[in-house]
Amino acid sequence: MPNIQTEPTQLDRMFHALADPSRRAVLERLAEGPASVGELAKPFTMALPSLMQHLRLLEECGLIQTEKVGRVRTCRLQPHAMDAAGEWIARQRAVWEARFDRLDAYLQILKKQEESTDDDPAAR
Amino acid sequence: MPNIQTEPTQLDRMFHALADPSRRAVLERLAEGPASVGELAKPFTMALPSLMQHLRLLEECGLIQTEKVGRVRTCRLQPHAMDAAGEWIARQRAVWEARFDRLDAYLQILKKQEESTDDDPAAR
Repeated sequence: MPNIQTEPTQLDRMFHALADPSRRAVLERLAEGPASVGELAKPFTMALPSLMQHLRLLEECGLIQTEKVGRVRTCRLQPHAMDAAGEWIARQRAVWEARFDRLDAYLQILKKQEESTDDDPAAR
Repeated sequence: MPNIQTEPTQLDRMFHALADPSRRAVLERLAEGPASVGELAKPFTMALPSLMQHLRLLEECGLIQTEKVGRVRTCRLQPHAMDAAGEWIARQRAVWEARFDRLDAYLQILKKQEESTDDDPAAR
């Protein structure tokens, strides 16, 4: 088990980015396709500078990429952006489930031993 | 797309909990099986009150459960604890991939149309 790290890792930054409902809403919108900052701003009541701050954070941690052409900045979901976060969660689930499978297999063995003792007249 | 919520949701709290490397390390350890606070503390150099604070946060957002028997507090991973977070990520990936499948299908149609125009002597 590692100790506390002073520098936030990519995974720290990614989970931190996902902890905000507005940033998740931006990612949900961008999963459907690229959008300009103006389009992303429409459903929000927050001020544009706040949205820009969220977009900057999403870009810094590699979840989105943005490109400015003329006066329009277009945002896109970064391909396989959330894979690292999804894989970390899937790995814990796999370890946890493997442990339960082992416990279950062990309980089955105990149950069979008990049944064979019940069937054995010598054991009665 | 929802607007900013003032109250953090379960998903906000869960992703926030996962954004810390020490808390992830605790979850990684607990995926392998229950452990006492003492056992969890061993690999860390941090003070016990800091670890307790992390454990409290993990318990509050439903990722772990703890039980005190005598002087020993045992921590367990909550079954299916991270499902909501994993499912949110999987959903975005599915939306994103479906969009690319549609784009790909469209490109295949364009390509076929181009090929059939090339084959057509009347179109030369």
